[in-house]
Amino acid sequence: MTTLRFTKGHGTGNDFVLVSDPEGEIDLSPVQRAGLADRRFGVGGDGVIRAVRSHRIPEGRELLEDAPDAEWFMDYSNADGSLSEMCGNGIRVFVRFLVEQGHIELAPGASVAIGTRAGVIDVHRIAEGFAADLGRWRLDGGEPLVRARDLPVARPGLGINVGNPHVVVALASDDELEALDLSTAPVLDPPPAAGANVEFVVPADPLVVDGIGRIRMRVHERGSGETLSCGTGAVAAALAVRYWAGSAAPNEWRVTVPGGVLGVRMFAAEDGERVALSGPAELVFEGELTL
Amino acid sequence: MTTLRFTKGHGTGNDFVLVSDPEGEIDLSPVQRAGLADRRFGVGGDGVIRAVRSHRIPEGRELLEDAPDAEWFMDYSNADGSLSEMCGNGIRVFVRFLVEQGHIELAPGASVAIGTRAGVIDVHRIAEGFAADLGRWRLDGGEPLVRARDLPVARPGLGINVGNPHVVVALASDDELEALDLSTAPVLDPPPAAGANVEFVVPADPLVVDGIGRIRMRVHERGSGETLSCGTGAVAAALAVRYWAGSAAPNEWRVTVPGGVLGVRMFAAEDGERVALSGPAELVFEGELTL
Repeated sequence: MTTLRFTKGHGTGNDFVLVSDPEGEIDLSPVQRAGLADRRFGVGGDGVIRAVRSHRIPEGRELLEDAPDAEWFMDYSNADGSLSEMCGNGIRVFVRFLVEQGHIELAPGASVAIGTRAGVIDVHRIAEGFAADLGRWRLDGGEPLVRARDLPVARPGLGINVGNPHVVVALASDDELEALDLSTAPVLDPPPAAGANVEFVVPADPLVVDGIGRIRMRVHERGSGETLSCGTGAVAAALAVRYWAGSAAPNEWRVTVPGGVLGVRMFAAEDGERVALSGPAELVFEGELTL
Repeated sequence: MTTLRFTKGHGTGNDFVLVSDPEGEIDLSPVQRAGLADRRFGVGGDGVIRAVRSHRIPEGRELLEDAPDAEWFMDYSNADGSLSEMCGNGIRVFVRFLVEQGHIELAPGASVAIGTRAGVIDVHRIAEGFAADLGRWRLDGGEPLVRARDLPVARPGLGINVGNPHVVVALASDDELEALDLSTAPVLDPPPAAGANVEFVVPADPLVVDGIGRIRMRVHERGSGETLSCGTGAVAAALAVRYWAGSAAPNEWRVTVPGGVLGVRMFAAEDGERVALSGPAELVFEGELTL
C-alpha cells in the first residue's frame, strides 16, 4: 500500500495525470499507468506524465551527454499505459507543473530544455502559457481523397508530417465544420500505410488579421477518435493553410480547436524551418490515492 | 477563491464526485457542478453528490417530518449540473462515503435511512458492499419492438418502470450481445412518450445456480448513450427475465454489466413487492481544487 500524490492538468482539453518523482523512486507498471488514466475507475486522462530528473532514468542519461542542461525528463505514457515519445500539449502542462512544484524557476520569456523520448525540446514561457519547439516538419503523404460521414463529396487532403503523420482537409464554412460527423474514422484514398490524424479546417474571413492567420479546426486522431485538441494537428493545419494561401501568408497562426485556442509559429533555424506550438497549460486539482 | 475538498468514487464504473458539507455551507451553482463533472476540464463523473445534514436543506427538512431518522441527505446532480432525484449506484457510493468520512457508523447487516429527492431510501451494509431498497416496480410501457444498429431483425421488448422507464430486450447469446453497436440510440416502435433506457440481456445457461438467476446485460441510457452500468437498468433486466422465465424463477439475481456485477433481490413488503439493488461501492481518490 503506497500513497501516490498527483496533479491533474490540461492544455486546451488534452488532459494528463502528473506525478512528481525527482529521484526516480516511483515505479509505475503499465497496468498502474493505465489504471490512473482510466476515467471511471481511476483519475482519468489522455496520458500519464512522470517528472523525473534526467540522470535518474536511462533515456535521460543518454540525452545529458549532448544536452547537459536538460535537467528534467518528461516520462510520458499513453492512456493505455504504453510509453510514448512526446506530446505537444502535454509538454506545456509538464513545464507548468515543474514550475508549480518548485522544481524549476522560469521567468516570462525564458526557456527550459526538457528531455523526452523524442529528444530535447525547448519550452518557452510566454504571456498565454507556454510554447514548445516541435522541430522540423515536411510535406509527406501526398494529397489523398478524404471521405467522412455526412460529407457529401470526397475532398482532397494534404499530407504533412510533424513527427507524426497528418492529412489536412479544407471545408467551406463553420456550418460545414460543425455538421461533420467524426464518430467514425474518415476514409483516406489511397490509405496511408501507418494511418494518419485527419484535420478538417475552415479559414476565417478575412484569413489574416494583424499579421496573424486564423483558422478553425476539428480533428480525428488515429486510435483515439475525435478529441478536443491535438497539438501536432494544429501545427499541421496551420502549415497546410499557409501552403494553400501562397507566399503572402504569415508565419503566425491562431488555431481554434473544440477545447480552446492554440498558437502556431513557423521560424527559420540553422537546420531549416521549425514550428512552435503555444497555448494555455492549466493545473486543475491535486489528489492522493492508494496504489 | 475557495478550496474545495472532494472524493472520487464509483459503483461498477458509474462514477461520482462526492463533497462533504454537513452544515450546508457549500453553495455550488449548476455551472460549478457541471464543471466538477467535466472529465477533461474538471474532476470528471456521471454525477456530483453533496452530503448534507437533512435539516440543513429544505428538501431534507420536509422528509424529516415523517422520517426523523433520515439524518443525511444525498444532494444529487447530473453531469450537466441539473438536480436529480436518485441514483441506485450513487446512493451506495454515498453511504460508503458517509462511513469513510466518519459521519455515520454502519455495522455489517445494519441499515441507514438516507434522504433523497425521491424520498427516504434504506441502504443496508452487506458483505459485497451496500444494498439500496429501490421500492416498488411495475410493468409499464407495453412490448415495443426494438431496433439497434447491426441487429438483423427487430426484437420485442418489455416495458418496466422502476421509478424511471426501461425497455428490456432478450438476445440469444453472449456473442450477439458483444457484437451489438450501441453508439446510437436503439429505436423503439411505438416510441415511449418520455423515452426509455434500453437493456439488452442474455440469460446464462443454466439460468439458475444455487437459487440465483444469472444474466449479462448492456444498457443504452436516455441522454447518456451506452454506460458501464445502470442500477435501475439491472433491476429492470432481472425483473423482465424473471417475468419471461415464469413462476419457478428465483427472486435473487446476479447481473453482469460492463463495469462489474450487481445483485438484484425482489422481496414482499406491506405495500407489495419491492426490489433492492446491491453491489460494490469504491472510493478511488481524494482531491482538492480551487473554485
